[in-house]
Amino acid sequence: MTVRNNAVEVTIALTIPDCPLKDQIEADVYAAIINLPEVEEVTVHMENMTDQERKALFGEPAEGSASKYNRVERVIAVMSGKGGVGKSLVTSILAVALAQSGYRVGVLDADITGPSIPKLFGVHGPLQSGPVGVLPITSEAGVKIMSINLLMPEEDKPVVWRGPLIGRAITQLWGDIMWGELHYLLVDLPPGTSDAALSTLQSLPVNGIIMVTTPQSLSSLIVRKAVHMAQLVGTPIIGVVENMAYFKCPDNGKQYFIFGPSHTNEVVDTACAPLLAQIPINPLVASLCDAGKVEAITLPEMQGLLDGFLQKLPVKMEASKKKNR
Amino acid sequence: MTVRNNAVEVTIALTIPDCPLKDQIEADVYAAIINLPEVEEVTVHMENMTDQERKALFGEPAEGSASKYNRVERVIAVMSGKGGVGKSLVTSILAVALAQSGYRVGVLDADITGPSIPKLFGVHGPLQSGPVGVLPITSEAGVKIMSINLLMPEEDKPVVWRGPLIGRAITQLWGDIMWGELHYLLVDLPPGTSDAALSTLQSLPVNGIIMVTTPQSLSSLIVRKAVHMAQLVGTPIIGVVENMAYFKCPDNGKQYFIFGPSHTNEVVDTACAPLLAQIPINPLVASLCDAGKVEAITLPEMQGLLDGFLQKLPVKMEASKKKNR
Repeated sequence: MTVRNNAVEVTIALTIPDCPLKDQIEADVYAAIINLPEVEEVTVHMENMTDQERKALFGEPAEGSASKYNRVERVIAVMSGKGGVGKSLVTSILAVALAQSGYRVGVLDADITGPSIPKLFGVHGPLQSGPVGVLPITSEAGVKIMSINLLMPEEDKPVVWRGPLIGRAITQLWGDIMWGELHYLLVDLPPGTSDAALSTLQSLPVNGIIMVTTPQSLSSLIVRKAVHMAQLVGTPIIGVVENMAYFKCPDNGKQYFIFGPSHTNEVVDTACAPLLAQIPINPLVASLCDAGKVEAITLPEMQGLLDGFLQKLPVKMEASKKKNR
Repeated sequence: MTVRNNAVEVTIALTIPDCPLKDQIEADVYAAIINLPEVEEVTVHMENMTDQERKALFGEPAEGSASKYNRVERVIAVMSGKGGVGKSLVTSILAVALAQSGYRVGVLDADITGPSIPKLFGVHGPLQSGPVGVLPITSEAGVKIMSINLLMPEEDKPVVWRGPLIGRAITQLWGDIMWGELHYLLVDLPPGTSDAALSTLQSLPVNGIIMVTTPQSLSSLIVRKAVHMAQLVGTPIIGVVENMAYFKCPDNGKQYFIFGPSHTNEVVDTACAPLLAQIPINPLVASLCDAGKVEAITLPEMQGLLDGFLQKLPVKMEASKKKNR
């Protein structure tokens, strides 16, 4: 702090860069000083502490310590029960669409043994440590991303863990990560109704589930198991997305229902939730995913998915937008 | 036993219908009696005990008690790491092809939370209890099938279990089931490298792994994790199968690589194992699977898969065939 004549200049070093109280602190400091007798001018500079300063103040971060600084308005699990239906694709394109609409969005990749999110976004580790936890990686579109694969020295090395460790890893990806202030956190679940799904639905404050399926009756059968699990734990299903609905031949323009006629209505009926989108198979989408360019995908079906999603789980965008990072 | 003049007629009630010692018992009994002085003729009738007789003899079956009566020559895990690539399809069509070639084949559905095998074969519970364990269901082609879904009162109800229970369920599907005498038992693994894969590879005498993948680079990444896991536990990978390789348009006959160019060579290289088959997407196959008629599927790619499989893991068919069930 420097004081020259009646002008005060003060520098505040924030403990975490995305501190949700940043504006509040700035305003409080300004008010406290300007109200002093003889002070006529106050300038408040906001900076972030260095790693060294934080460690001197706090010591090493404790487990789960990030969670109390995070402000996540809505947590949504993207689930299926069935593998390979496109949960990660739906998670990613929805996250990008939300980010492009001005929302602050994070993606928690809860698939510990088969993580796809970093590959789709083309992001890699190593991650940086913040004062109270690990910092997620931010994609080009501004989506904050966290996945076990960002912590792996080699991306194709396996995580050979039994269930309890899987569950614990997911709660750490929630509680030990400095998500900061988010409108939406999308949790990309692995297949199955075991540890990952249980830990997510029991330990995270999940507001709703998007259920992803494919047209096959076989998918419908397995996805309905996940629907029943969601109903058991009491988490609402906000909508259903059908992926790989059909293939539109680029040469003759015809639609081929290559996975047979759709049985998605069975999932919709069991879930008592609307069908938010039917996404066709598109070789360009597959190629963009493989190239780590999921953010470049534009789908005509996206708007319906986004609208249906926002209608079910709205957040107060304007109020939140005031707090600029 | 009845004795008339010098003729002896004896009835043996077997404890289990598929008793691998049936021929041996019959021969031993015959020899023991015919060698008695004054006996000129022996007739041995082989029957099976009723449930009541077995219970009177053994009490209720003990856990894992079936395993010591089973004779399984080769156990093969069908694995991927990635979900939705067609592990269950590959397991099923290989099992059917082996059965049609005269081998005695079983399929153990190790996907506890997303079981597909009963649906593909169109088989349902309830199961019958044998003297020392539960009897698998036999399909039309003669494949013995066991899946957790055959034990469920409703097939779309979820199994919401944590990992340790999943692992235990798989060892029970192995040890408490009266598989009898099999040349091959194919184990259809769920996605991931967690409990199901660990328990199968650590608790069952797995001789080899078939690794299933799809063309996408994203699949290759996750499947290579499973390859590395197999290498960690030291189970040989006998071959790789690429599913959903392309879609052949029924109208113009062109091949469309709808999941992009193939990255399966990465899996083959990492696994140091041959590519056994490349199976295209075929709407008829999807429809037959959905209709529970996987046994009606005929694929030109099947012969190569079967030949490659038998070359890697041959069994002595003739010696085994002598023991008729």
